[in-house]
Amino acid sequence: MSASLKIIPNRLIDTIHHTSKWGAKFKWGAKDTNTGMCRLSLSQDEKMVRDWLVQETQKLGCKVKIDEIGNIFAIYSGLKEGAPTAIGSHLDTQPTGGRYDGILGVLSGLEILRTFKDNNYTPQYPVAVVNWTNEEGARFPKSIMASSVWAGVSDINDIYAIESITDEKPITVLEALTSIGYKGDTKACHKTNPLKAHFELHIEQGPILEKEQKDIGVVTGVQAYSWIGINLRGRAQHTGTTPMDMRADTYLTAAKIAIVVNNITKKHRGLGSVAEIHVSPNVVNVIPDSTEFVLDIRHTTDAGLQNIEADIESEVSKIIKGTDVIMEFKKLFHNDATHFNNECIDIVQECATNIVGSNKTKKMISGAGHDSCSTTNAKVPTSMIFIPSKGGISHNPVEYSSPEEIEKGFKVLLDTVVTFDSKRTD
Amino acid sequence: MSASLKIIPNRLIDTIHHTSKWGAKFKWGAKDTNTGMCRLSLSQDEKMVRDWLVQETQKLGCKVKIDEIGNIFAIYSGLKEGAPTAIGSHLDTQPTGGRYDGILGVLSGLEILRTFKDNNYTPQYPVAVVNWTNEEGARFPKSIMASSVWAGVSDINDIYAIESITDEKPITVLEALTSIGYKGDTKACHKTNPLKAHFELHIEQGPILEKEQKDIGVVTGVQAYSWIGINLRGRAQHTGTTPMDMRADTYLTAAKIAIVVNNITKKHRGLGSVAEIHVSPNVVNVIPDSTEFVLDIRHTTDAGLQNIEADIESEVSKIIKGTDVIMEFKKLFHNDATHFNNECIDIVQECATNIVGSNKTKKMISGAGHDSCSTTNAKVPTSMIFIPSKGGISHNPVEYSSPEEIEKGFKVLLDTVVTFDSKRTD
Repeated sequence: MSASLKIIPNRLIDTIHHTSKWGAKFKWGAKDTNTGMCRLSLSQDEKMVRDWLVQETQKLGCKVKIDEIGNIFAIYSGLKEGAPTAIGSHLDTQPTGGRYDGILGVLSGLEILRTFKDNNYTPQYPVAVVNWTNEEGARFPKSIMASSVWAGVSDINDIYAIESITDEKPITVLEALTSIGYKGDTKACHKTNPLKAHFELHIEQGPILEKEQKDIGVVTGVQAYSWIGINLRGRAQHTGTTPMDMRADTYLTAAKIAIVVNNITKKHRGLGSVAEIHVSPNVVNVIPDSTEFVLDIRHTTDAGLQNIEADIESEVSKIIKGTDVIMEFKKLFHNDATHFNNECIDIVQECATNIVGSNKTKKMISGAGHDSCSTTNAKVPTSMIFIPSKGGISHNPVEYSSPEEIEKGFKVLLDTVVTFDSKRTD
Repeated sequence: MSASLKIIPNRLIDTIHHTSKWGAKFKWGAKDTNTGMCRLSLSQDEKMVRDWLVQETQKLGCKVKIDEIGNIFAIYSGLKEGAPTAIGSHLDTQPTGGRYDGILGVLSGLEILRTFKDNNYTPQYPVAVVNWTNEEGARFPKSIMASSVWAGVSDINDIYAIESITDEKPITVLEALTSIGYKGDTKACHKTNPLKAHFELHIEQGPILEKEQKDIGVVTGVQAYSWIGINLRGRAQHTGTTPMDMRADTYLTAAKIAIVVNNITKKHRGLGSVAEIHVSPNVVNVIPDSTEFVLDIRHTTDAGLQNIEADIESEVSKIIKGTDVIMEFKKLFHNDATHFNNECIDIVQECATNIVGSNKTKKMISGAGHDSCSTTNAKVPTSMIFIPSKGGISHNPVEYSSPEEIEKGFKVLLDTVVTFDSKRTD
C-alpha cells in the first residue's frame, strides 16, 4: 500500500506552522512557532486559512464544494466515481487555543492529497479533505456545529440564528457565513453530499498516551457525557452577624455537591467535575444568596452515565434536605456514547501496528466530542487516530505534539486511507 | 433623667427618610420610602447630606469642627467646658446599601440635640454628634477608615493615598476630600480633639434580636475576625480527557477546604465562611488551574480565633498533601476582639431595662466592626445599642427596621447620653 508512497519529511509540520500565521497569538517560548492560536470560527483569520486551503487543493486538481453552512469538501478524483473517503476535522480554534487541535486533522488530509500528487498516485475512489465549520463552539456557542447540520442532527435555520458570544456586537452564524463568503451552494446534507468514510487524526488532548509511552491511540468511540446546571438560591447575610445555624449558604452547599460528584464518579469509574461556577454577590463578608454551577460528567457507556446521574440526584437531594437552600437541576446538554465503525477501527489498528508496533498502540475512548461523532450519526463508517499531547494539555496556547509524533500519526492516517480505499468495492 | 424630656414622635424616622433623597436607589416596594441607598463616601450625594447636617446642627447653636480627614464634630454646649459626650456613626453607605446602617446612628445623635433644644435642656457637659468618614470602605477600600485615623491606628498620609475602586477614573481620598470641601482644619487626633465617651445606635445587621423577639441589644464588644486569602494553583486540563487520578483540580480542593472551615468553626462555636471565590478559566470543560478565595473567620475571643486558625492551617495542609495543587496562604486582615467600656455597657443596660423591660434586652457581641472599635482603640469609653434588623438583612436595599423599633432604640440612646452626662464629674 502506501509503503510505496514517498512522503516529503516535515512538509506537514511546516504547513501547520505556516498557516498558523492566521491567528497566531500568546507567545510562550523563544521560537517563532512557540505560540498559541486565536482563530475563531468564520473570523477574518479563519477566512484567510479557508481561502488558502481552497487554493492549495485546487492546485492539486481537487473539485471544491462549499456547503450552505460553510463546510469545505476538497475532492481528489479517483479511478472510479463514488462518494469520497474523507479526512476531516476543523480549522477553527478556541480563543486561547493551540496549533494542533483540529488543524492537524485538516492539514494532514491536505498532506495526503499532496502525497498522492507527488507520487502520481490515483486512488480507486475519490478522497476528500473536509473542513467542518465551528467545531469548537467558541464563537458561536454550539460545538460540533456544522457537521451536525450535515448529519441531519441539527436544523440549519436554528443554527443560522445562533449569535456570536465573542464579538462586541454579536452577529449570527448566517451573517458571519455571508460576510466572509462561505455560505456555499451545496446543500448541507449527508444524503445529497455523501461521504463513504470519515477518518480524523487528532491530538489526544489528555495525558494517557504520554504517560503510557504509546505513539498511537486507536480510538474506538467517544464517551457519553452530560452537562447539568445546578442553581442554588439561599439568603445574602452578613458573615459576621449571622449564626451558623441561621444561614442559607449556597456556596457551602455547592462545595458539598462538588465533593459528592467527585466521589460518585470515581466510584463508577467515570469522570466528573465542577469547573464553571458563579457566586453572587461574591463579596468576602456577604454569604452568597446565589451559586450557579455546571456539572460535567462522563462515562464510557450510556448505562454508566445514567447510574452516575441517578446517584448524583439522590445524594444532592440529601444535601439540600433540611436546609433553606432551594435547588434547580437542569440538564443542559447530553451526548450518548459514540461507537466508531469496527472495520475502520481494525484498519487503523493494523496500519498502526505495521508502523509503530502493536506495543506502541493503545485502543482508547475519546474523552472529548469530535466531528467524527457527527459522521457516525450520519452512519458513515468512521474512526479516529490519536497522537500524544504533551502534559495532556489542550485548549491552551502551550498545547504541543512533537514533529516526530505528528509524522507517525500522519503515516498511520495515510496508510489507513489507502487501505480503506483499496478495499472498497462499493 | 430624660423621662422629663419631651420627644417629638416620628421626627427621627422622618429625618431618615427625608435625607435619604441624597442617594436613594433600588426601589423594592410601593411606598416612596421603600428604596435602598447608594451614597458612597465623599461623593456628591454624601456632600449634600453632610452640608445639611452642618446646617441643621448650626441652627441648634452647635459649633461644628471638620477635621483633616473629613470627620464632622457638631458640638452642643453644656453648662461646663469639657470633651464632648459623642453620639457617632456614619452617613456613607454600601453601593447597594440600605437606609439605616450608620445613618440611624448619626441622625439619632442629631435628634438628641434637637430634643435638648426643644426642651430648653442644657447638659452638664458638651454633647456632640459625629459623622465618621468612610466607615463602609466601599468607595475607598479601607473600612472604619477615618475614625481609625482619629484614633491614631492609621497614618493619615497612607489613608490620603488610597484610591477609589468605584469610580471609572479612580481618585484618592485626599482628592475626594478636597473636591467636596471636607478637608477641614482640625487635626484628626483623639488627643487634640478628644471625646469623653462614644455611643452608637446601630441596626443589628443579623437575625438574633428578631428571632429571640428582643427590642434592644446591649452590645458588649465586637468579635475578633480574620480574612485569610487562599490561592490554589493546579493544572488546566480537559474534563473529558483527563483521568480523575491525573488531575490537579483547584476547585475540588477549594470545595474540600470550604467544608473543613465550616466544620472547624462550628466546633469552636465561631463563624466561618467562604463567600468570595474566583475560579479560572471558569469554563465548564476545563479543570480550573487557579482558584482563589477568602476565608472569613470570627470568634468572640482572640484565643478562640487563634484556635480556629491553627486548626484550619493543619487540616488544610492535610487536604493539599499528596496532590499536585500548590497553595498560598495569606492573612489579609485581622481585628482583635474589642471590649466596650463596662460603665457605658451598664448605663445602656439600665436605660434599656427601664424602657423595654429587662426580658426584652439581650447582652450581645457585634459580629461586624464599627467606628466604636476606633473610639475604644483611642481609649474613649464606648458602647453600642442594637435594634432588630428584619430578616437579619443588611448591606442590601431591603434592609429594614420598623419605626417602633427605631423609636425604642432612640429612647435608650437618649437616656444613655443624659445618664452618662449627669454622672460626669470629669
